[in-house]
Amino acid sequence: MTFRHTLARALPAALLLAVLAAPAALADTATEAVGLGGGLPDRVGINSAFVFLAAILVIFMQAGFAMLEIGFVRGKNAGSVVAKILVNFAIAGLGWWAVGFAVGFGGDGGLMGTHGLFLAGDDVSRHFALAYPSRANGVSMETLWLFQFAFCAVTLAIVWGTTLERIKFGVYVIYAIVFSTVIYPLVAHWIFGGGWLASAVHVQDFAGSIVIDITGAAAGLAVLLLLGARRGKFGPDGRPRAIPGHNMPLFGLGVLILWLGWFGFNPGSTLNALDGRFATVAVITQLAGGAGVLTAMLVMYRKTATFDIGMAGNGAIAGLVAITGPSGYVDAWAAPVIGGVAGVIVVYAVLAIERRLDDPVGALAAHGICGVWGALSCGLFAAPRLAAANLPGSRGGLFYTGSFVQLGSQLVGVVVVGGFVFLTSYAAFWLIGKTYGLRVTADEESAGLDISEHGMYGYPEQFIPASELVGYGASPGLDRLGTGPLSDPEPAAH
Amino acid sequence: MTFRHTLARALPAALLLAVLAAPAALADTATEAVGLGGGLPDRVGINSAFVFLAAILVIFMQAGFAMLEIGFVRGKNAGSVVAKILVNFAIAGLGWWAVGFAVGFGGDGGLMGTHGLFLAGDDVSRHFALAYPSRANGVSMETLWLFQFAFCAVTLAIVWGTTLERIKFGVYVIYAIVFSTVIYPLVAHWIFGGGWLASAVHVQDFAGSIVIDITGAAAGLAVLLLLGARRGKFGPDGRPRAIPGHNMPLFGLGVLILWLGWFGFNPGSTLNALDGRFATVAVITQLAGGAGVLTAMLVMYRKTATFDIGMAGNGAIAGLVAITGPSGYVDAWAAPVIGGVAGVIVVYAVLAIERRLDDPVGALAAHGICGVWGALSCGLFAAPRLAAANLPGSRGGLFYTGSFVQLGSQLVGVVVVGGFVFLTSYAAFWLIGKTYGLRVTADEESAGLDISEHGMYGYPEQFIPASELVGYGASPGLDRLGTGPLSDPEPAAH
Amino acid sequence: MTFRHTLARALPAALLLAVLAAPAALADTATEAVGLGGGLPDRVGINSAFVFLAAILVIFMQAGFAMLEIGFVRGKNAGSVVAKILVNFAIAGLGWWAVGFAVGFGGDGGLMGTHGLFLAGDDVSRHFALAYPSRANGVSMETLWLFQFAFCAVTLAIVWGTTLERIKFGVYVIYAIVFSTVIYPLVAHWIFGGGWLASAVHVQDFAGSIVIDITGAAAGLAVLLLLGARRGKFGPDGRPRAIPGHNMPLFGLGVLILWLGWFGFNPGSTLNALDGRFATVAVITQLAGGAGVLTAMLVMYRKTATFDIGMAGNGAIAGLVAITGPSGYVDAWAAPVIGGVAGVIVVYAVLAIERRLDDPVGALAAHGICGVWGALSCGLFAAPRLAAANLPGSRGGLFYTGSFVQLGSQLVGVVVVGGFVFLTSYAAFWLIGKTYGLRVTADEESAGLDISEHGMYGYPEQFIPASELVGYGASPGLDRLGTGPLSDPEPAAH
Repeated sequence: MTFRHTLARALPAALLLAVLAAPAALADTATEAVGLGGGLPDRVGINSAFVFLAAILVIFMQAGFAMLEIGFVRGKNAGSVVAKILVNFAIAGLGWWAVGFAVGFGGDGGLMGTHGLFLAGDDVSRHFALAYPSRANGVSMETLWLFQFAFCAVTLAIVWGTTLERIKFGVYVIYAIVFSTVIYPLVAHWIFGGGWLASAVHVQDFAGSIVIDITGAAAGLAVLLLLGARRGKFGPDGRPRAIPGHNMPLFGLGVLILWLGWFGFNPGSTLNALDGRFATVAVITQLAGGAGVLTAMLVMYRKTATFDIGMAGNGAIAGLVAITGPSGYVDAWAAPVIGGVAGVIVVYAVLAIERRLDDPVGALAAHGICGVWGALSCGLFAAPRLAAANLPGSRGGLFYTGSFVQLGSQLVGVVVVGGFVFLTSYAAFWLIGKTYGLRVTADEESAGLDISEHGMYGYPEQFIPASELVGYGASPGLDRLGTGPLSDPEPAAH
Repeated sequence: MTFRHTLARALPAALLLAVLAAPAALADTATEAVGLGGGLPDRVGINSAFVFLAAILVIFMQAGFAMLEIGFVRGKNAGSVVAKILVNFAIAGLGWWAVGFAVGFGGDGGLMGTHGLFLAGDDVSRHFALAYPSRANGVSMETLWLFQFAFCAVTLAIVWGTTLERIKFGVYVIYAIVFSTVIYPLVAHWIFGGGWLASAVHVQDFAGSIVIDITGAAAGLAVLLLLGARRGKFGPDGRPRAIPGHNMPLFGLGVLILWLGWFGFNPGSTLNALDGRFATVAVITQLAGGAGVLTAMLVMYRKTATFDIGMAGNGAIAGLVAITGPSGYVDAWAAPVIGGVAGVIVVYAVLAIERRLDDPVGALAAHGICGVWGALSCGLFAAPRLAAANLPGSRGGLFYTGSFVQLGSQLVGVVVVGGFVFLTSYAAFWLIGKTYGLRVTADEESAGLDISEHGMYGYPEQFIPASELVGYGASPGLDRLGTGPLSDPEPAAH
Repeated sequence: MTFRHTLARALPAALLLAVLAAPAALADTATEAVGLGGGLPDRVGINSAFVFLAAILVIFMQAGFAMLEIGFVRGKNAGSVVAKILVNFAIAGLGWWAVGFAVGFGGDGGLMGTHGLFLAGDDVSRHFALAYPSRANGVSMETLWLFQFAFCAVTLAIVWGTTLERIKFGVYVIYAIVFSTVIYPLVAHWIFGGGWLASAVHVQDFAGSIVIDITGAAAGLAVLLLLGARRGKFGPDGRPRAIPGHNMPLFGLGVLILWLGWFGFNPGSTLNALDGRFATVAVITQLAGGAGVLTAMLVMYRKTATFDIGMAGNGAIAGLVAITGPSGYVDAWAAPVIGGVAGVIVVYAVLAIERRLDDPVGALAAHGICGVWGALSCGLFAAPRLAAANLPGSRGGLFYTGSFVQLGSQLVGVVVVGGFVFLTSYAAFWLIGKTYGLRVTADEESAGLDISEHGMYGYPEQFIPASELVGYGASPGLDRLGTGPLSDPEPAAH
């Protein structure tokens, strides 16, 4: 409780500090930094408008992750996901503005950028152009900020899939600050921002199988190892038991919104409307996602003789995750292969991981293992002409060139990013665990996070007897119904 | 019942009249008014395409308001929101086409426009260009129609937050006609359409803290005062009691859709893709919304030691409402300040208002009070160069200029619009109340609007015993199960 | 079971074949087919970006159909819709890529195209330009692929409305392959692809009242006739009984998403951002959808004295379906007439059809009958100058020209497409029925498709006693709770 209160005091102070620092940072260059922009060449305006709209699609993925996670948790934890998504999305934006974008895109390559804190400083555009040489000279700085902010927020959303139904809410808050200002920006810089993995190791990652999916999954693994499984997930004999999600319609809505968002992710990563490349990338994205659905359903059908709904969705995610990295580097024919293999992988990975770890939404399999497959698939399928056009110095894949060189680069990218994110996140979560704590009490977990952390069920009418419904609620100025000692709400619902 | 039938007869007649009037109005100019448009300069086409897509985002906010309201009502009133949104969205479009757009944008300034009824008349574009001098020469007339129609429909949606769970459905229908043809168009004209508040008083309102949010809240207050609180909201001792909404996941989906829509609202209000300003406005929008989430959650955490889900969402709305007006007039550093203050305001405002008035979704606080704060914040934070560029004659805010002049203009805008909308709406609702009636009976309210006004529960399986489910329904050609005297469905659900 | 296993083996083989065929087909032209596109004229890039974003809106309609259908079925069948949408969307993409697009748009008119299998072949663009002369020279080939793929997938989604709650899941899989490679592509070619109905009969269909809605409804009728009604739909006396859908909020969300998608459908079908025509088409779309809502609600109000929620939504769909075909051919004043009449038609059509056929979502009325009305309305309301501009050789409607010629063309289009799709689909479903079977057993139907076909309820907490919830699930590596003999889950839920 003490730490909670410290947190409650520290956050507004940090916010205030950020706000106070901004004008100073802006200094006499404010006019340029957020000027009227009247001097933009038309091509930049057009490309920026296109990338802006792609960013909106990626931002909509917040709703996709929220619905997917809500669908996969039990009803007593559904509301918590809403608060989590909102607070993470909020922090990611402020962190990306204050620090993250500068670290990610305000440098000339190497380890990290330093220009453009608070989007200020007259030389930001120059650095940004240096950092992102092959693609980013077509959009305005603020547009790239928004697009990459959307990526940062999506990656943060991926982290939490492993933690649902037992984590303390404050962990979301604290880690989001670290993640959006340090961890994600560094990784983004190394690959998207022209840093060493792109410029020296020539790691191909068009839209983020590594930067987004492996990053999210590595952090998710770190917190999961410290957090442990949900109560009841493993039986007395140590065998895992399914804890079915409470709402497949919302899960399905989430998957469809994510699929939609991927049309912002991949095609938008061309950062260009005028060259028309985005449409080819969109075709590739669709083919991979579709193949992932079909192979995942097929494998499950052969195992269970049912058409598994969750795996249909996970297959879509798997195929889309896998094609994210290669989407700008491969020809269309490779897309259903990459996506189809991902659909097979995700089923076996979910089942294998579930034997030891409790990952409620299958994020480690879909984003982690399929992210690795996607990253490596560049080393197999990248077309030489696309490699040359997108990332000078990188090469075509094994199936075109007979060479393992690019595959090796991809492996380095996977190991470096996965390792870095896992270690820094593990350290961050360990520290949070030692101070604030990671996990709610057993009673709180049984009662559900909605009532224990948020003071209100996500579906009050399901869990509170009708006679007590009016008058119930958390508003401090109102009569509040004592809920007594926390208890598992499920029996009451039936 | 008699009035209901009169209404049922009058509506199609009105529609028919509108349709018959159109060709006459079009006369020999139809070819121009809805011509092939082949003569558009490319810049206009590009800007129009961008604003068209921004309009789509704003239109999507209809789903956001629907989900937010559904989440905040009890399950027995959830379906009613769907019918309400559809019928309001329908009426707003037809009203805006027949009359509203002409009143709002078919004039040369002053009190109201008169050109362009049914989008017809050869001189509409000229008036429209005169009315909207600084921004609107870059998009086609039909594009501005769509964008501003979306604004009108959003504003209408805001009105109804205060009325949920006890209003008669027909009120939505009647008021929507008045609102979309008279009330909103006049306000829009005065500020967006180059009318007297913009041209003479120099009121700054980039995307509508005044035109949208204060308008919506003032009308919502008017109807609330006439309608009264829900049964059971205030205890025998006069103290308010919380009536928890039934579905936080749908509430969260609504908030996220609204946030998405705001990226159409504010950036789209630049009415320009080529100058790239939209991206800066988007950054500003994100920062304010995020700050609103954080401060609202923080204040609630200090009061209740819980992470309140509803207030997280209300904080987002509050921050976004507040930045709507200033979004084109302020530098980025001001955005988290404006949004963060709004997040604090909304909590205290919700609690204060709830002591006297029953506003189920907190619309008066989020749109009304925070709309006022947003409007006034222009007078504090507007950057002089942005003031000059966007609205010649307007000035920088107090913190830049040391002058209270712009703050005074803003106050005039708030008082004039708030007062005008409140008075006209109060009169309209009073008249509706005297003739058709505003409120369902106590029995109907207890039973829920779904069954009493719409003949079917929104969740039949929750409220009807399984044995009676097949055969139940309102279709007139079908067997219908008598529901007997209306009764409160909640006990039956458990 | 044997056939199921054959299917399970055949599908990956077919996928593999497709993938293996692709490189061969691509041969030495791969570089062009999926090249960097750097040589695109700016106008093509701009128009393509616009149409790409319109395609995204149309793709989002998948979520709209899913939510609408979920809302209209009983809770025990809600999850099945998710799996269906995902697998259909997946198959449609792969089928459209391998074969469908070539058949639809890879020809020079006539009966079918043949160029562009797997989007490969150097002469595809030439054929495509020939096939789509008046509109398609402004977007890249891959953009048209995506836009038309979205249409194909939407049409496939329309088919299944009639089949909910009793069809075997595999039917979705098998028919989707036939539909996306043969049936839809042929129809699309005949009208959109410059084929004989467009070039010789001069059938006007701007965005698909015929190609999309009549096609979907004709196939839906074919499968419905073979499938029969849901158990319990018709009482012992043969009279129909209402089976209320379980979730009006999700139904409403679906309708709103579909309405949004229609702004991609119709305005996007101009295939042009620069001429600004899309905005006029958007205005027309809005007016027709709105009029449909109002007239449908009004007719229902006069019949039942309630504001029917389902009919409000169906009215919107009806108006939007009807305006789809004429949206580029009519002046704005005709839009509320066409939409308003559709809103009346849909109510009477739903009631008439329901006396004999069990169409759970009213698809035959909304898409079929209103699609016919929309198609014919071109023959009444088409403005001569728009007819000439959009489809040389076609004429203005009866009300402008006094001539029945165009009305006759439209009738030919309706009969040919409706007849062709009905017959081929009937044959396909008959074959599927004879081999795999069309319908689940009575026990499976009572238990619901979620548990019987997919091994898991869509809402487990509603249907499984809390004490048995943990440990329940379909994952093959996990403990699984025996569900015993299938039984109707509804009594257990209360």
